[in-house]
Amino acid sequence: MAGKPKIAMLVHPNMVLLDHLGPHTVFNILGAEIFLVWKTRDAVSTDVGIAVTPTHTFATCPVDIDVLFVPGGLGGTIACLQDDDVLTFLKRLAGTAQHVVGICTGSLLLGAAGLLRGQRATTHWYAHDLLALSGAEAVQARVVQSGKFLTGGGVTAGLDVALTLAAQLADETTAKRIQLVLEYDPQPPFKAGSPQGAGEALTTQVLNSRAPVLAKAREALIAACARAGAA
Amino acid sequence: MAGKPKIAMLVHPNMVLLDHLGPHTVFNILGAEIFLVWKTRDAVSTDVGIAVTPTHTFATCPVDIDVLFVPGGLGGTIACLQDDDVLTFLKRLAGTAQHVVGICTGSLLLGAAGLLRGQRATTHWYAHDLLALSGAEAVQARVVQSGKFLTGGGVTAGLDVALTLAAQLADETTAKRIQLVLEYDPQPPFKAGSPQGAGEALTTQVLNSRAPVLAKAREALIAACARAGAA
Repeated sequence: MAGKPKIAMLVHPNMVLLDHLGPHTVFNILGAEIFLVWKTRDAVSTDVGIAVTPTHTFATCPVDIDVLFVPGGLGGTIACLQDDDVLTFLKRLAGTAQHVVGICTGSLLLGAAGLLRGQRATTHWYAHDLLALSGAEAVQARVVQSGKFLTGGGVTAGLDVALTLAAQLADETTAKRIQLVLEYDPQPPFKAGSPQGAGEALTTQVLNSRAPVLAKAREALIAACARAGAA
Repeated sequence: MAGKPKIAMLVHPNMVLLDHLGPHTVFNILGAEIFLVWKTRDAVSTDVGIAVTPTHTFATCPVDIDVLFVPGGLGGTIACLQDDDVLTFLKRLAGTAQHVVGICTGSLLLGAAGLLRGQRATTHWYAHDLLALSGAEAVQARVVQSGKFLTGGGVTAGLDVALTLAAQLADETTAKRIQLVLEYDPQPPFKAGSPQGAGEALTTQVLNSRAPVLAKAREALIAACARAGAA
């Protein structure tokens, strides 16, 4: 890619900031031109209480971006699923972007925008069945590439996705240099990062705690897909 | 630990936000009471341009905190090394905290505050020789525990440190549940997260690019240690 890649990162109220920040940090070291985009330029809240101020709105975001990036977080995702302005913006930008990235439940927004029909894709482990509702082939994997669509699992998968993308936007040596700068040599103290590793009891506990909000996300996703189909 | 742990997180201008956010996200899910602390309550800048607004100042931060957490980022670290108000605050809070955590070059600040003399500790791989200047026994490891001091390697080590700490603040099952929620099952696309994995050419390239700022950090650290010794 000649010159700095232009990366539009959707920021939405109640997003999980870590979904966003791992990739943002990689893109920043890469020297990308980064656009933080939302409906307005009012600061958006995040899960940890650190607010993010958009640099651009849907109206002012450049159309010639190279990458569209969408983070998750169930609360923010549900609100976006109910908002056709957001879904229309994603569909429009994805039409010309060379890479379209969804992390965690951000992938559901790509699905609801009608972008993942027939594509292999992934999302947070507890939302796989929801992703399939949008016509995607939901895959249990950390990083899934399908044409121009690059999707990742929950939250921390953002770093793995972003390094994969950095190698494509620049080259593998550049991606490795970024990994070294971030000392990304992960050594989790436990093996509980997946349902397989965590075991059934913990997995059921997390699923039960998320059941009400997952039900809302399902309802919002089905409604969004119906609206998109009727359009 | 009875009740919510109280965690004071130093935020400093030009800190690397990812040093902070991995742990902040873990502590947030843990249900900790989190204090973002700086000299004033003016928003502090970070490497990626997202500003963080402190919730407390050195004067208003509670004294009965359980955890003191210090992030890095070379630019911000150098400024803090030159600022005795910061080092005095760290020393004061570390005196009563039950856990004192340094991530990346944040460990150098603990060292300059005179806290790591004779302690095993770690920091970003490119700052190990600097850490030793403060009297610490610099260890090449991702997470190092030495008494109440818990230190981590560069940037992304924060997540491994925070999960280690979560198991101590609560219990192992709780830490595993947080890991599962964050789907922290890392699968980096390359093995370049350490000098050993990245190889000599890339390591030299990063060291050369950091040489001027590492030299400044060395100078600031030596001066701070001298001031602390004379006090």
